[in-house]
Amino acid sequence: MSLLVVGSVAFDSVKTPFGEVDEVLGGSATYFSTAASYFTEVSLVAVVGTDFPEKHLTFLKSRKIDIEGIEKQDGKTFRWKGEYGYELNEARTLDTQLNVFQSFKPKLPENYKDKKIVFLANIDPDLQREVLEQVNKPALVACDTMNFWIEGKRESLLKTLKLVDILLINDGEARELSGEPNLVKAASIILSFGPKTLIIKQGEYGALMFSGDRIFSAPAYPLESIFDPTGAGDCFGGGFMGYLSNTMNFEESNIRKAIIFGSVMASYNVEAFSLDRIKSLDYQEIKDRYQEFKKLTHFEDLS
Amino acid sequence: MSLLVVGSVAFDSVKTPFGEVDEVLGGSATYFSTAASYFTEVSLVAVVGTDFPEKHLTFLKSRKIDIEGIEKQDGKTFRWKGEYGYELNEARTLDTQLNVFQSFKPKLPENYKDKKIVFLANIDPDLQREVLEQVNKPALVACDTMNFWIEGKRESLLKTLKLVDILLINDGEARELSGEPNLVKAASIILSFGPKTLIIKQGEYGALMFSGDRIFSAPAYPLESIFDPTGAGDCFGGGFMGYLSNTMNFEESNIRKAIIFGSVMASYNVEAFSLDRIKSLDYQEIKDRYQEFKKLTHFEDLS
Repeated sequence: MSLLVVGSVAFDSVKTPFGEVDEVLGGSATYFSTAASYFTEVSLVAVVGTDFPEKHLTFLKSRKIDIEGIEKQDGKTFRWKGEYGYELNEARTLDTQLNVFQSFKPKLPENYKDKKIVFLANIDPDLQREVLEQVNKPALVACDTMNFWIEGKRESLLKTLKLVDILLINDGEARELSGEPNLVKAASIILSFGPKTLIIKQGEYGALMFSGDRIFSAPAYPLESIFDPTGAGDCFGGGFMGYLSNTMNFEESNIRKAIIFGSVMASYNVEAFSLDRIKSLDYQEIKDRYQEFKKLTHFEDLS
Repeated sequence: MSLLVVGSVAFDSVKTPFGEVDEVLGGSATYFSTAASYFTEVSLVAVVGTDFPEKHLTFLKSRKIDIEGIEKQDGKTFRWKGEYGYELNEARTLDTQLNVFQSFKPKLPENYKDKKIVFLANIDPDLQREVLEQVNKPALVACDTMNFWIEGKRESLLKTLKLVDILLINDGEARELSGEPNLVKAASIILSFGPKTLIIKQGEYGALMFSGDRIFSAPAYPLESIFDPTGAGDCFGGGFMGYLSNTMNFEESNIRKAIIFGSVMASYNVEAFSLDRIKSLDYQEIKDRYQEFKKLTHFEDLS
């Protein structure tokens, strides 16, 4: 099947204790699409400026990503600048320039409107709904969001949440959205907002899935060298949604497998700056790491 | 088999957002022994003051814990006072009164000297070795420590580490002991100090085991109400060592099971103040929660 994603395509400048890169390819939809492209066809909706080089589009096309939905507008591409300390957990944002993203009104190409799987990456919840309204009866809708929208556009975000099946956010966002510090209680509040399934990304600690009264706990892959965490959450989303789109099976047992594939893609992504590691994986590497997650978490039943 | 533990028996005063208790039974060896007592015979080495009430000793005896090694000294029992915020992760210590613990020289009763499994809870590493020297050829030795000894008695701690098979510490302590922020690298440094196995306790995020080049990741049990995290790490140790002592199997697969039993005991303990929850569990509750950990972490193999 085929997966539609709307989100940002950007230039990132990132500094970590291990190095520094300037205006490299980034953005939530870029990371998401690249990770998802190992599992399924991806159609991307985003906006870039006239400064966006052809080579990046060529790269996306080389991953078989449909870029007809990338609009080129007069102006500059979205830019983000951030820095990580030794703990590599949360980025300190040094600069955000919305540029062409400021006036972005996503308009879906005709052949995007029948996509069955939709991912609304972290953008204005108004825009998330505008995209969703253009899709004919999707089979599965998931979204991401962030503190900026939770604080600034709560009512609109709640409207979006009524329309989505799966919400992917991090633990801080779950606490803020629910107003509840305990994650189990927070999850039950958030599920009452609409989504059937909530996935809480916890960075180096893995991810938790809440669905009805069931919980799944997935670890992160313990890595000896983490170069740059930028895009890890988006790659998680891409692997996760890509696998669901590939299998078209939304049962809980398959959602659990999808979470592990998401974790695999996130773990590869942080091994290098930008998309350097995930731009050229082969599928055997993905399967091998999936099996590593199996070994990592295995313990025997009670005899 | 039978398990020997040396550590603190104390009065704790604890404040959390959910309530407050004053001078209740606490201490690392108390939590550890109580948790371990569901799996094995436990022999406790500690010191208390003349203010230590008979009822607490009666409780420990009711759990079949051998308390011959609890020395009563003139003076007051060790006291700790701490406070937790809404996140319930790290305690803020408000007051520590070592009292009789200050001049404690552990002396093992004769019948303790042939114990095969030894746990050196978080006390001065000099004392840890003094205890160990009194034991005849133990089959397995594990220990805990804390930042206070890592900073203040590093050389002595390193001597102790040469003598132990398993080290149980938290992530902050692992980073401090190794001087390395990345936990995989930290683990490899710490294993070079002597222990064959390192277990890193991560509180609400579970635990990691490092042994040779193998890693096991255990989640924490997601609880809707956490009342008081005090003693969770010690209960983890008690369940862990208790199960190893019960089975006398130190293979990695059994160490993984022991980690889950440790996690089970820690998860019960935080549901109430002091030992209120773990003082009267039945073994079926322990097995049930072990199975809950299985469900919590289960995902299918690749087909």
